[in-house]
Amino acid sequence: MWKEENNCLQATFRFRDFAEAFAFMTEVALHAEKQNHHPNWSNVWNTVEIRLSTHDAGNIVTDKDRKLAGVIEQIFQKYPG
Amino acid sequence: MWKEENNCLQATFRFRDFAEAFAFMTEVALHAEKQNHHPNWSNVWNTVEIRLSTHDAGNIVTDKDRKLAGVIEQIFQKYPG
Amino acid sequence: MWKEENNCLQATFRFRDFAEAFAFMTEVALHAEKQNHHPNWSNVWNTVEIRLSTHDAGNIVTDKDRKLAGVIEQIFQKYPG
Amino acid sequence: MWKEENNCLQATFRFRDFAEAFAFMTEVALHAEKQNHHPNWSNVWNTVEIRLSTHDAGNIVTDKDRKLAGVIEQIFQKYPG
Repeated sequence: MWKEENNCLQATFRFRDFAEAFAFMTEVALHAEKQNHHPNWSNVWNTVEIRLSTHDAGNIVTDKDRKLAGVIEQIFQKYPG
Repeated sequence: MWKEENNCLQATFRFRDFAEAFAFMTEVALHAEKQNHHPNWSNVWNTVEIRLSTHDAGNIVTDKDRKLAGVIEQIFQKYPG
Repeated sequence: MWKEENNCLQATFRFRDFAEAFAFMTEVALHAEKQNHHPNWSNVWNTVEIRLSTHDAGNIVTDKDRKLAGVIEQIFQKYPG
Repeated sequence: MWKEENNCLQATFRFRDFAEAFAFMTEVALHAEKQNHHPNWSNVWNTVEIRLSTHDAGNIVTDKDRKLAGVIEQIFQKYPG
């Protein structure tokens, strides 16, 4: 699901519609805020693109990113795609 | 899932945790706002209780409630519970 | 804004419309999840009722509730009512 | 607030923190879904960038975009920035 590129973990997620995409974003947002580690992400209708890197480490991929990526993957699993 | 009681459609939904429950609420909120028909609902941690009735019809159950109930049921189906 | 009653901190918040009420709930949800302390709350259209107590302390009001109540009050201040 | 560039209405919004930024996004999302007109938007921590254009009209700016831009501007006004 994730690939490492340009010092980021990157992935694209597709959903049934906007409402489902934004519900996914809300669940991710709650975990991101809890981990105090926030994604660089964008959305158009049913598609969400997420890029993870660690600002405080000089914008490289660290364990903080791998941890959040794992949580996001688990959240995404329930969506039938 | 839904039962009609006291002139309301009522149902209780349980989730893995608060983040999942609130993501569900967000998806429901987007559909409710689109239909201009809003639930009477409450949440504690992983549990969401929803009551639907139609204010403008004198707080009885109408097709507006049945339509929203159907959408909510479809949203809920993806959650493993 | 808050009153202590039945071993809960309770308050009612009113907004312009449902969208504003749910945006408020989302900001509260992000802080609640971060503090790992979740409200007992309900919503109908533009109104949100929040009750705070500490389950692990035997459902009484503790500093955890006062802390979250303070954050919620600060969030609410920006809304013109 | 908005400027028209590359056949898009574009604006950048800054907030106190991530929770406030995501609450703003939630309120915008509810209106966007209601108007069935969705933004192309991105977020990093306290910053939200929004681009509006009308896909069905060949990705140019139409009244649908101006209408949603006006609603977003009104939502943003309550934030102290």
